[in-house]
Amino acid sequence: MEVAATKGQIIKGKPVADQISENLIKEVNELVKEGINPKLTIVRVGARGDDLAYERGALKRCQSVGITTEVLELPEDITQEQYVKALEKANEDKNVHGILCFRPLPKQLDEEAAKYVIAPEKDVDCFSPVNAAKVMEGDKSGFPPCTPTAVVEILKHYNVDLKGAKVTVLGRSMVVGKPAAMLLLSENATVTICHSRTKNLSEVTSEADVLVAAVGRAKMVKENFVKEGAVVIDVGINVDENGKLCGDVDTDAVLEKVSMITPVPAGVGSVTTSILAKHVVKACKLQNNK
Amino acid sequence: MEVAATKGQIIKGKPVADQISENLIKEVNELVKEGINPKLTIVRVGARGDDLAYERGALKRCQSVGITTEVLELPEDITQEQYVKALEKANEDKNVHGILCFRPLPKQLDEEAAKYVIAPEKDVDCFSPVNAAKVMEGDKSGFPPCTPTAVVEILKHYNVDLKGAKVTVLGRSMVVGKPAAMLLLSENATVTICHSRTKNLSEVTSEADVLVAAVGRAKMVKENFVKEGAVVIDVGINVDENGKLCGDVDTDAVLEKVSMITPVPAGVGSVTTSILAKHVVKACKLQNNK
Repeated sequence: MEVAATKGQIIKGKPVADQISENLIKEVNELVKEGINPKLTIVRVGARGDDLAYERGALKRCQSVGITTEVLELPEDITQEQYVKALEKANEDKNVHGILCFRPLPKQLDEEAAKYVIAPEKDVDCFSPVNAAKVMEGDKSGFPPCTPTAVVEILKHYNVDLKGAKVTVLGRSMVVGKPAAMLLLSENATVTICHSRTKNLSEVTSEADVLVAAVGRAKMVKENFVKEGAVVIDVGINVDENGKLCGDVDTDAVLEKVSMITPVPAGVGSVTTSILAKHVVKACKLQNNK
Repeated sequence: MEVAATKGQIIKGKPVADQISENLIKEVNELVKEGINPKLTIVRVGARGDDLAYERGALKRCQSVGITTEVLELPEDITQEQYVKALEKANEDKNVHGILCFRPLPKQLDEEAAKYVIAPEKDVDCFSPVNAAKVMEGDKSGFPPCTPTAVVEILKHYNVDLKGAKVTVLGRSMVVGKPAAMLLLSENATVTICHSRTKNLSEVTSEADVLVAAVGRAKMVKENFVKEGAVVIDVGINVDENGKLCGDVDTDAVLEKVSMITPVPAGVGSVTTSILAKHVVKACKLQNNK
């Protein structure tokens, strides 16, 4: 008997983002009816390409669900005092419900100090340590970073059962790896965190029912890194040897082995701005006791 | 050929605690010479047996290395306002370098609010979210909770190589499991977090080179939960069916299989107060720019 090679399913971010948007439009409409206009302020220093690209996506997404947006573009040579003042002004502005600060900040600014300035209740992408602590505590009143939240939303959208599942996170950054591990733990997964120092890495990752790759190395996850039938979430955004955008996973190499995998581009990245919009609406509701 | 059954080594906490004390005595002497007297204030509400037992150990340890101690015993029916005031007074007192707040607090008190009150730089047992965030970030300037720090100290003292090792933490509390996972990650271990919802628990734990049991269930870790030659750190403090103190591990059952295991009592618990004392001295030094 011949077994047909069944290719894994490419699971895109768009349907997840669309569903979030659909819900947000209703929520924003309700708020607007009551005279409340959810608003996001983006605080950008200088004009880095990465920031501008994300900003375009974020503005478009927020506007599409009815969130008011504002970009505070600060000069690249801004002093710490001026930066803190700008942040405090946004904190105090009652019309602003969410604040997104682009990072990393330029060298002359003290990011370690600045992160204590942003109002935790407006901090929609986990800049504040108060929100980092809430992620660790599993306290849902806070705002985890948008990218790992998008990872969990995608898994839920595609009905991946996380309870008791063996989930392995490859990467231990504060923007993705560690918070992803904590969020997945809150979903009752058994979570393993791997990294550059892990011995027999492919052996460890190939035991996972769900593999989250967030290590920032182009196509490093090969066929031998994944278990037959695994679900793979590719968080990496890299450029391959031909200058093409690619993830941390060698998608072509693993596709026939896995059950589902997110593409790069059009995977996790497409959901991140929806989470940002969702956080702005959540912040707005909390600030208005809704 | 017969293979002799080699019993695992029982690794006690006392030698670890003694070494920490020895170093602290020197450090405190240096500070005292400069007119600086490290001081710990314990804030206790009511007189719970657990708190009193820990307090006795903490006071004895701190005094033995030359740390000045003070116990603020507050009435069991204290109001939130009074509790916060007491905490703020300790925050402001320049002679106090470390503050230990016993928890859980009685029901009428809002622990969630109180944890934002304690000064992070005096918070020697990770009550403040600022310190929880630092644990997650791997920022060594903070104060992780004493118990998981004791776990790491014991492993280091007994020369257990954590780099790249498969370490499994059983339990996901904010006092032990999660911070232990983060601290072990900072030591470059590959960390897995298991819990009550983990499927095939014994299978998962029996893959670990190092197993940290912190789940609070008497003797639940049996022989089939551990790998041949594993190092086991037993954080549990439970009472068995005969009313005797015991850990989360069935020590007799695993002893011949493991390479090293901490006993209960006389294991992790004996090191915790040394870490507390160490944190007080660290806090004192930081506050005096040493």
